[in-house]
Amino acid sequence: MKIAILGGGPGGYVAAIRAAQLGAEVTVIEKERLGGTCLNKGCIPTKVLLHTAEQLETIKKDSREIGIDVSDATINWKQLQKRKEKVVRKLVAGVENLFKNNNVTKISGEGSFISKNQILVKAADGSTVTVDFDYAIIATGSKPVIIPLPGVDLPGVITSDEALSLQEIPKSMVIIGGGVIGAEFAEVYGTLGCKVTIVEMLPDIVANMDGDIVKPLRDKFIKSGIEIYTDTRVVSISKSAENLIVNTSSKNGDKSFEAEKVLLSIGRKPVTGNMGLEELGINTVKGAVSVNKFMQTNIENIYAVGDCNGGVMLAHVASAEGIVAVESIMNKHPDIDFKTIPYCVYTHPELAGVGLTEEQARNKGYDIKTGVFPMYINGKAMIEAQTEGIVKYVADGTTGEILGLHMSGLRATDLIVEGALAIRLEATVEEIISTIHAHPTVGESLLEAAHAVYGNAIHIPK
Amino acid sequence: MKIAILGGGPGGYVAAIRAAQLGAEVTVIEKERLGGTCLNKGCIPTKVLLHTAEQLETIKKDSREIGIDVSDATINWKQLQKRKEKVVRKLVAGVENLFKNNNVTKISGEGSFISKNQILVKAADGSTVTVDFDYAIIATGSKPVIIPLPGVDLPGVITSDEALSLQEIPKSMVIIGGGVIGAEFAEVYGTLGCKVTIVEMLPDIVANMDGDIVKPLRDKFIKSGIEIYTDTRVVSISKSAENLIVNTSSKNGDKSFEAEKVLLSIGRKPVTGNMGLEELGINTVKGAVSVNKFMQTNIENIYAVGDCNGGVMLAHVASAEGIVAVESIMNKHPDIDFKTIPYCVYTHPELAGVGLTEEQARNKGYDIKTGVFPMYINGKAMIEAQTEGIVKYVADGTTGEILGLHMSGLRATDLIVEGALAIRLEATVEEIISTIHAHPTVGESLLEAAHAVYGNAIHIPK
Repeated sequence: MKIAILGGGPGGYVAAIRAAQLGAEVTVIEKERLGGTCLNKGCIPTKVLLHTAEQLETIKKDSREIGIDVSDATINWKQLQKRKEKVVRKLVAGVENLFKNNNVTKISGEGSFISKNQILVKAADGSTVTVDFDYAIIATGSKPVIIPLPGVDLPGVITSDEALSLQEIPKSMVIIGGGVIGAEFAEVYGTLGCKVTIVEMLPDIVANMDGDIVKPLRDKFIKSGIEIYTDTRVVSISKSAENLIVNTSSKNGDKSFEAEKVLLSIGRKPVTGNMGLEELGINTVKGAVSVNKFMQTNIENIYAVGDCNGGVMLAHVASAEGIVAVESIMNKHPDIDFKTIPYCVYTHPELAGVGLTEEQARNKGYDIKTGVFPMYINGKAMIEAQTEGIVKYVADGTTGEILGLHMSGLRATDLIVEGALAIRLEATVEEIISTIHAHPTVGESLLEAAHAVYGNAIHIPK
Repeated sequence: MKIAILGGGPGGYVAAIRAAQLGAEVTVIEKERLGGTCLNKGCIPTKVLLHTAEQLETIKKDSREIGIDVSDATINWKQLQKRKEKVVRKLVAGVENLFKNNNVTKISGEGSFISKNQILVKAADGSTVTVDFDYAIIATGSKPVIIPLPGVDLPGVITSDEALSLQEIPKSMVIIGGGVIGAEFAEVYGTLGCKVTIVEMLPDIVANMDGDIVKPLRDKFIKSGIEIYTDTRVVSISKSAENLIVNTSSKNGDKSFEAEKVLLSIGRKPVTGNMGLEELGINTVKGAVSVNKFMQTNIENIYAVGDCNGGVMLAHVASAEGIVAVESIMNKHPDIDFKTIPYCVYTHPELAGVGLTEEQARNKGYDIKTGVFPMYINGKAMIEAQTEGIVKYVADGTTGEILGLHMSGLRATDLIVEGALAIRLEATVEEIISTIHAHPTVGESLLEAAHAVYGNAIHIPK
């Protein structure tokens, strides 16, 4: 069985390894470095920057109080950039090594379909090679959306791609779009001394997550000097003598913000152009490849996974879809449960959610109960001096089934595993409550939030 | 319904609040501060010390590499002691506040049974009061074991109680007993500049946990200069001119270790003396109150929870038992699953385990499969520069049911929630695998360990 995979990001490379495990002969076509946006321009490099920002913030905020005398802590941006590149290179090398280990062939170049069983690959030097396949998986990812706004092409207007590798920390930055990406860059640059202003069209930042868990992050941003303008639309970008000016409009009137850099982080769009999809008759909707639940396109031996198929644009979803596609091709009956997708923001406090938010559950007509536990009561959070955040369980009021878990605070992006597994196993509140949670851990706050669904949290004052 | 509770630690205070929630009239008798060993001399103060030690280690080890210039970081022991006391006081005040909120009466003094329905309480000033009850719960906890060793009463030989509040960081310390408590103090004092030697009778430190997860901690201890002598028995303690000498014996011969302080951390024993148990005819075994699975003693209206009943000596177990006792008394059919008890060590790397270790599972006759994932491959661990550790799932080889999860590394004490819930719900490896884990998180290593049970981890080179 020959499988060709277009794109070596978290969708493509995981699919490739899984396919090799199952005995397929696998070729991956990638025009840049393996690892895709995730490893090279997304998840990984942003988290390297965020880790240093968090650590710097912690050193400055807590050292004295927790009994550590530190004279002065300052950012070494050049070294941080070096480290970012080092971590990325190491992970990319890891994927290359896994390809060798699993006998996955990698071809460097840009691929496009020339038939239902052939991809033509053009290398950077102009040479071409044809890859024959029984099945193909399109995993070409996404790229930042650039809105056709007056002034959007001015120097200094950047996307997340460039924001990762600025020569210096800018003095000021306007972030257009306060979603996950915008929030993470606000955290990085805000902490490192840049004056950050977020302009968001929606009523809140990180609007896809449960509002109650976002509030502690918004409060922290505001406290740390980040200005947030929600319900605000950007009209144009212009130039002042030394800086850029972002002109906005809201129900409160027009307002302009001056900054050295303007980061456009309003979303990402599928990369599906120039690869012969139209010629082959593969169905797309708004540039995204249409797929069924097995990730299969309308051409039955061609699949599409990850950001390019217009689903949830997250690395772990791409990987899960890659496994589903491969297992479908190899008749392995995939059973990954897409109700268990966790959504994470790696700010400080961290945000994480899985399943239905309170609002989503109500909109679906559930008679719900919620249990909320504020992090400031948690002993471990107190010890680590990170008491911002809350935990919220959303449960079916009739059956007690867990519908969602939403959390901000210490270790939230990891603790979300409890909610994901609970949803996978259709667990009830009673089942969470009857599971012993270690003391003293942040995880105890999840136990307490579950107790709180029935008003029985031990540590919440009445 | 009148319930009297002897002891206000994590067993007693949680039982008290739960009983109040269920409508009982509750009196708690406590001779010291509320919160028991856990809040005052155990879990909480040790974690305050450990947090600072970890942070100091991280600042020194990682700052330069992650792009933070820090001149010098030194421990301020007096301030750390102050903070420890502050955190403890805040949490104790929290429990006091919860008692008021829930109308739980607290009586200060030492209680002892004078009948099956009465406890006599003697206050510090000599005054007495009698508490009548329908049901009583004994929750008197435990205290450090002191072995009758020659020299054990020399000045400078201390237990964990004193080790929390030393005036200064000692230059050197011999820790007798490398269990959880010994390991945590080795971490604290070793990191803060004290020359630490661990002497352990068993073949390994933290011998109650899966050996594979302990290894990374042992390696780190040794690398950081802590000396570890296992299979070694202490014969006596004597005095040198300025220090103490711990004389030991092992199959390699006799050996003596000199140190400023000697910490005895060989275990804890139930506190059950002088409280009228014998007179009442309450059964005890080796000083521990005997109970059935409802925590009921042989006197049917008297229960015992936590360390004093000779079960697993952990705060979260005491709390769970407290809830079981109260719910039994109040006919609420408790269903806490004691197979889900997590065991945690708050060192750096953290250790955590739940369910059966590989060895325990084999000894019980299971035909097992294990899945191991080394933390150094995990992207988030790499980003946080904490790549020590492993994850190990232990599963029934026939049914795939999860029998245990064991982990060392970043956030292990919180991520153990996945294993606890999996055991509670009798989840299989397939169910872990089909649950999406967020990228990039430490939690992904649990997904990979589950995949590894069937040899299908994506990121482990063949």
